[in-house]
Amino acid sequence: MASNSFGQCFRITTWGESHGPAIGVVIDGCPAGIAITLDDIQQALDARAPGQHALTSPRKEPDRAHIYSGVFEGVTTGTPISIIIYNQDINSTHYTPIKEVLRPGHAQYTYLEKYGIYDYRGGGRASARETACRVAAGAVAKKVLAGTDIEVKAYLHEVGGIQLDAPDFEYLSTSHLGCAHQDFEAQLTTLLATCKQSGNSIGGVVAFQILGVPVGLGDPVYEKLEANLAKAMMSLPASKGFEIGEGFASAKWSGADYNDQFDVDNARIVLTSNHAGGTLAGISSGQPITGRVVFKPTSSIQAAQRSVSLLGEKTDFQLPPGSRHDPCVAIRAVPVVAAMCFLVLVDAFLLNKLARCHE
Amino acid sequence: MASNSFGQCFRITTWGESHGPAIGVVIDGCPAGIAITLDDIQQALDARAPGQHALTSPRKEPDRAHIYSGVFEGVTTGTPISIIIYNQDINSTHYTPIKEVLRPGHAQYTYLEKYGIYDYRGGGRASARETACRVAAGAVAKKVLAGTDIEVKAYLHEVGGIQLDAPDFEYLSTSHLGCAHQDFEAQLTTLLATCKQSGNSIGGVVAFQILGVPVGLGDPVYEKLEANLAKAMMSLPASKGFEIGEGFASAKWSGADYNDQFDVDNARIVLTSNHAGGTLAGISSGQPITGRVVFKPTSSIQAAQRSVSLLGEKTDFQLPPGSRHDPCVAIRAVPVVAAMCFLVLVDAFLLNKLARCHE
Amino acid sequence: MASNSFGQCFRITTWGESHGPAIGVVIDGCPAGIAITLDDIQQALDARAPGQHALTSPRKEPDRAHIYSGVFEGVTTGTPISIIIYNQDINSTHYTPIKEVLRPGHAQYTYLEKYGIYDYRGGGRASARETACRVAAGAVAKKVLAGTDIEVKAYLHEVGGIQLDAPDFEYLSTSHLGCAHQDFEAQLTTLLATCKQSGNSIGGVVAFQILGVPVGLGDPVYEKLEANLAKAMMSLPASKGFEIGEGFASAKWSGADYNDQFDVDNARIVLTSNHAGGTLAGISSGQPITGRVVFKPTSSIQAAQRSVSLLGEKTDFQLPPGSRHDPCVAIRAVPVVAAMCFLVLVDAFLLNKLARCHE
Amino acid sequence: MASNSFGQCFRITTWGESHGPAIGVVIDGCPAGIAITLDDIQQALDARAPGQHALTSPRKEPDRAHIYSGVFEGVTTGTPISIIIYNQDINSTHYTPIKEVLRPGHAQYTYLEKYGIYDYRGGGRASARETACRVAAGAVAKKVLAGTDIEVKAYLHEVGGIQLDAPDFEYLSTSHLGCAHQDFEAQLTTLLATCKQSGNSIGGVVAFQILGVPVGLGDPVYEKLEANLAKAMMSLPASKGFEIGEGFASAKWSGADYNDQFDVDNARIVLTSNHAGGTLAGISSGQPITGRVVFKPTSSIQAAQRSVSLLGEKTDFQLPPGSRHDPCVAIRAVPVVAAMCFLVLVDAFLLNKLARCHE
Repeated sequence: MASNSFGQCFRITTWGESHGPAIGVVIDGCPAGIAITLDDIQQALDARAPGQHALTSPRKEPDRAHIYSGVFEGVTTGTPISIIIYNQDINSTHYTPIKEVLRPGHAQYTYLEKYGIYDYRGGGRASARETACRVAAGAVAKKVLAGTDIEVKAYLHEVGGIQLDAPDFEYLSTSHLGCAHQDFEAQLTTLLATCKQSGNSIGGVVAFQILGVPVGLGDPVYEKLEANLAKAMMSLPASKGFEIGEGFASAKWSGADYNDQFDVDNARIVLTSNHAGGTLAGISSGQPITGRVVFKPTSSIQAAQRSVSLLGEKTDFQLPPGSRHDPCVAIRAVPVVAAMCFLVLVDAFLLNKLARCHE
Repeated sequence: MASNSFGQCFRITTWGESHGPAIGVVIDGCPAGIAITLDDIQQALDARAPGQHALTSPRKEPDRAHIYSGVFEGVTTGTPISIIIYNQDINSTHYTPIKEVLRPGHAQYTYLEKYGIYDYRGGGRASARETACRVAAGAVAKKVLAGTDIEVKAYLHEVGGIQLDAPDFEYLSTSHLGCAHQDFEAQLTTLLATCKQSGNSIGGVVAFQILGVPVGLGDPVYEKLEANLAKAMMSLPASKGFEIGEGFASAKWSGADYNDQFDVDNARIVLTSNHAGGTLAGISSGQPITGRVVFKPTSSIQAAQRSVSLLGEKTDFQLPPGSRHDPCVAIRAVPVVAAMCFLVLVDAFLLNKLARCHE
Repeated sequence: MASNSFGQCFRITTWGESHGPAIGVVIDGCPAGIAITLDDIQQALDARAPGQHALTSPRKEPDRAHIYSGVFEGVTTGTPISIIIYNQDINSTHYTPIKEVLRPGHAQYTYLEKYGIYDYRGGGRASARETACRVAAGAVAKKVLAGTDIEVKAYLHEVGGIQLDAPDFEYLSTSHLGCAHQDFEAQLTTLLATCKQSGNSIGGVVAFQILGVPVGLGDPVYEKLEANLAKAMMSLPASKGFEIGEGFASAKWSGADYNDQFDVDNARIVLTSNHAGGTLAGISSGQPITGRVVFKPTSSIQAAQRSVSLLGEKTDFQLPPGSRHDPCVAIRAVPVVAAMCFLVLVDAFLLNKLARCHE
Repeated sequence: MASNSFGQCFRITTWGESHGPAIGVVIDGCPAGIAITLDDIQQALDARAPGQHALTSPRKEPDRAHIYSGVFEGVTTGTPISIIIYNQDINSTHYTPIKEVLRPGHAQYTYLEKYGIYDYRGGGRASARETACRVAAGAVAKKVLAGTDIEVKAYLHEVGGIQLDAPDFEYLSTSHLGCAHQDFEAQLTTLLATCKQSGNSIGGVVAFQILGVPVGLGDPVYEKLEANLAKAMMSLPASKGFEIGEGFASAKWSGADYNDQFDVDNARIVLTSNHAGGTLAGISSGQPITGRVVFKPTSSIQAAQRSVSLLGEKTDFQLPPGSRHDPCVAIRAVPVVAAMCFLVLVDAFLLNKLARCHE
């Protein structure tokens, strides 16, 4: 069954395994007339790229995007946009010794049970590499929304118990680690160095704020904006939870304190607070849309772990020396969370054109 | 745009406003040959019904289901199953005085902005009443899964800071408040009585456990089991967050502690722990699927709140005396969360028949 | 699998068996702000109703539509529109004697093989009765298009070899038999009387013309306007072919004669002919969209036919005396073909709002 | 809006313009465990390739397929299959002189009106080149059905009034022109030579027979097998009509002659004739599925035609000398019609696994 697509109007379909010749995304439904360059996409990919910082995975692939269709003389034509990224670094020989043993926390076991076959060379479709396609598509979505005031900020909110208090978006724009504060980045760097040294990994939370959203995006009942944001985020590798506004803390609030009340400001209806996180009944309220996504610690660690061979015998699983390793997937997830925000928003934005008829 | 459907194979489409003549659901894609009676559906509806307990909303509607198609001589025929519930209690006169003022926390404002029109008689599609249709459809989904070992437990995990430690499913089966422990229910009852008396409301968290799930349900990449569970839950009125397994707590774990390792038990591959919450890379791992959904406090409270009239003037909003009132939506959400689990599971179960070909 | 829906933006889902308590349709995605009355729907249903003419089936059901949701104070609200028609004439006792024998030309055999169960009381979902729901939905679609110049003409083009040369739309508006010419209607009446008397039936072709279509409706590649019209028409009971423009006669033409050439008229680009039937590469060209749909002769005839019992024994099938009987399904298909035109057009019209972005 | 996909379970998405760097197809939903080689796909592409016969278009591109994902060690893995064909022959300089004038019968006009932009280098998405992707996907679909008895025969039925009486499938297997009889091929060759010489073109009809189809494929109501076949065929460039069984001739038949009656043969239920063309109420009846698709004459002809410049001035349109030219698109459509049969069949075959539950 088709399960590699996201979005109704602006629909992306991604393909490709981490160790095949290429990965790619087809965007179907992008409106015509959007100015877009390869650079727009490449910049987004570069921001996600591994290997740009000593503390993330050292895979050295350049991740060069190619636009193979749908853009003519710098403008979208309304036809499918096919973006391809050739895999450069697909020597998978260091995977062979471990192909016979299940990797704890990886897709191998469930894929094998489901499909009866598994590409043992790497994470396949379950690899975080698939998210490069989301980022490329997100860059296109961002261009579609360029005529609006919509802006997306994504940043680390927590890693291993260290939490960010108030985001500094100016700092964020310079950070290679998705940090929205210098002190937080310093603490994080120390923590990651420890992780890296011990071959261990750590979980984290990515926060997002979507600013400049007009009132009216999102569709009742099953296509609520927060429902699609939740699905988008929970489709990311390693994500374990999603919340909007006050999120799980809402359980501790009373309605009298929680309710966002209405007021008039400058002849426009506004809300006096934003505990709901920018939606009312699944439709954007004009307030910033705020939320968080949690990621489990990276499954690949240096320590030996208990496992089972494909023959069903107990054995240890041990990563071969020199394996690529990201101590904290949440860091690399930051630009992907932003991309998913754009993908959900662009779909809601286009769908909203259908809410009323002759306008 | 069509936004009132959920599910790909077992697709439900709900319709109806809280204050119209009826609400209903059409189930398209239910396999033929499933034994189902009106009683199966009625029992599920009764468990959700308001007015059965002094502490929930006193709306006295009986919520009688009618099956109008798709079932012949007690068995599904493969054609659409149409279930209709006539609205009994639709005197909306006590709504009229407030129709000119925006209700804080309600759909009115965003619907009006989006559609330019709003049925002022009640919550319309945004009303929790829509969830009766989900519960009816969930009862059918449960029957489809009757030949499997799949079982769903849903229960209150937290209300206003009071938390359940370990669920007692025996107690749960007798509780009218979705409580899985006697002490917890006692605490909750006290808390709700206070809420009710003060006309205030409180948030809560509903937990679920799906037991007996075979390995292999869920589809990569965008149709991960947890992505569809998240969308299902975040499409519920008032839900503000979803998490699976350790959820948001994952941010504090290291990989060495978090990873669920493989072992062999009784010649079958098992996992030594279940921090992931029953899925690996979006596909069920054979472990119980565990998660939680948080609901904000009920928006309807007795206290006056700041608001704005439809003419754009500041005014207070005050519920008329005698308005229906649920101090905690999380309580009534318990059977709805269970229904959504069944709806997601049945879809994944059917889709899984397509993963391999000649079997 | 869900197979009872049609349309992407303006999506209808129909339900109900011919001999159950009711049939109905849910329209999801109808824009808000469309003025619609029960009368609009009822008039369309009346035009389709059997029993209004001595030569069509004498079923006397009134086919009263009820709008149960989605319309408030005479205007659509953007929420699903549920329309229900209660079945009045569901005495199915005269079906019982034949329930054990396969009816030639009917759904029974293939439904039984597919689903393992069949509602023997009548045609079930395969009954032409389902088309009442299409007609009701088509009436709503027509109202959505009311602000455009789009008009649909459907009429009999051929019955049993008698063919209409040139349609007279003024006459059509008064004909109860979908005839666009007095002479044609006279010939047809004679033919049908013969059919009726002999208990035989006859095939026919329904033509349609869609006028006032703006340039640009329809989407490449798989959602071409003619592809969706073809699917719409071939989903009708008893339809056996669809053609657009010159249709099957195109095989005899040369390109030099066939090509519709461009010209300028009144400062607008026009086409000098319309052999293509109003589309170019799947997108409306501004010319009238013209086509035809063929319907096989009604399967129910009075003569005994060879058949097989459900026990697998050869036997004759004979309709019980007094069975309802339509000598020519094409006649009753006329308003249904028109309804399908509206349903395809409204979807293309709404989708076209997404072709360009900031307009 | 997404419009470049076909199929629900076995969903293909095609992309690429005729004059861009490549075209391709992503197959999402192909079951795991299907043996497939590049050769299977290449052979299908070769059968469609232009330039293999003096009477079809001399474009010399080799059309080499590359499989970039979804197949591992010769077997499908259940992940998306990405097939790419690089364009070799994309010198479009001979198109430049005509880019300012609308080409009669081509997509340019409607695309321009719809999207406000058009890739003037060639047919873009409307080019028959897109059908190479359908053929590649059809080859995969054929492999999925390899375990069944399903076989597809497609062949020319009529060209410019010359008609084939009875197909000779042995001859068909050797014909480069999709001819199922030697005499027919001889007549056709003469006709095409005349066309070619005069720079004119001619219409044609392609017939198909699908043999070995089990009872039960196809879904009521809107997903009838013939409805999906019709949509598939009417989505092909230049197709103008679709019919099944007796098709348009049905209008001349009486029910007594037309009805396919039931009989018992070798303890199995069979039909005594096949006027319906292999389906009953949209579901396969076990009989061969037979139908025809008509294609208009190729729009590109040598004669000057009236047209309009992009500036809105009347002008003549004249193909530049040496332009590629296919006198009859129906010939090259033969393998594409076969591919569409496989694509529709594989979807119905997979969907049918969901009709009953625990089997």
